[in-house]
Amino acid sequence: MKKDFPVSKIRQILEPGPVVLVSSAWKGKKNIMTMGWHLVMEFSPSLVGCIIAESNVSFEMIRKSGVAVINVPTANMVDQVVGIGNCDGDEVDKFEKFDLTAVDGEKVEAPLIDECFANLECKIVDDRLVKQYNFFIFEVVKAHVSNTPKYPETLHYRGEGTFITSGDVLHKAKQFTKFKNDPNF
Amino acid sequence: MKKDFPVSKIRQILEPGPVVLVSSAWKGKKNIMTMGWHLVMEFSPSLVGCIIAESNVSFEMIRKSGVAVINVPTANMVDQVVGIGNCDGDEVDKFEKFDLTAVDGEKVEAPLIDECFANLECKIVDDRLVKQYNFFIFEVVKAHVSNTPKYPETLHYRGEGTFITSGDVLHKAKQFTKFKNDPNF
Repeated sequence: MKKDFPVSKIRQILEPGPVVLVSSAWKGKKNIMTMGWHLVMEFSPSLVGCIIAESNVSFEMIRKSGVAVINVPTANMVDQVVGIGNCDGDEVDKFEKFDLTAVDGEKVEAPLIDECFANLECKIVDDRLVKQYNFFIFEVVKAHVSNTPKYPETLHYRGEGTFITSGDVLHKAKQFTKFKNDPNF
Repeated sequence: MKKDFPVSKIRQILEPGPVVLVSSAWKGKKNIMTMGWHLVMEFSPSLVGCIIAESNVSFEMIRKSGVAVINVPTANMVDQVVGIGNCDGDEVDKFEKFDLTAVDGEKVEAPLIDECFANLECKIVDDRLVKQYNFFIFEVVKAHVSNTPKYPETLHYRGEGTFITSGDVLHKAKQFTKFKNDPNF
């Protein structure tokens, strides 16, 4: 079961650096792509920057619709993740091919991937660096996150077909003097 | 022992999303800050984007010098990482306080942290989004990476004093049809 999650806290999900699945829709077609180049940019508004290469079918769908969903898969979805990154959305419906369930977004016209533990509905808010770098700035306008487990096992891509999974959790809050509302802690 | 590492391949180090230590120098002073909000932006030139909050002492040092070093710590350095993020470079020499060794950069006027397994010497190449978002685009001009282990245990911050460490390695190259020179695989 997923619940609404505060968009100002999505660093908890994205800052550790998981590979994500980006879903989008345009004119009755929908698509999914893999993405590893992203960063949190601000708490409130909740901003995420990312690179979406122009060569992807999703690039134009996201540009034209102005929206996308960032979905975070767990490690047991690794074969689906690899498959999605290795086929072309022009030739296949990736939801069907990889047995994934599309759920309508609440705030954006793009499908959520139900099997992922987190779904972040996003709108493009700044495209100034798209032309030069393919760099999009999204605002997360709605977040849906599974209740359990608290620390899902995620996939972290390092290129050349190799993924690192997330491991142990270290709780160090007692050593913090304060929690600055600051990306540098 | 560290060796020179191709700057076009630093995705292997940064794309999994480790928390990093950013070192800088200006007018005889040096400093270190923690950073979790970063992304790879391009293979060649080797570009990395990141958020450095204006409230940090390092912000002005990096702006004025135009350079910085991104150092990647291993998980056994967690207490040093937490300590660095919880004190102020105006009041303390963090290299001294945390028993870290400053090594001169080869291509930039900023210190490398010898104890980190990877050191990426960087120059600012685009500051258009600094004013609005504190977003810097660096070019990695020189990379030094330890030979062993091949997959160091890294720290991934998720806010509120909690870190995730890197876990198992999954080799999936055989399921890739091709390696696109593409951030989305």
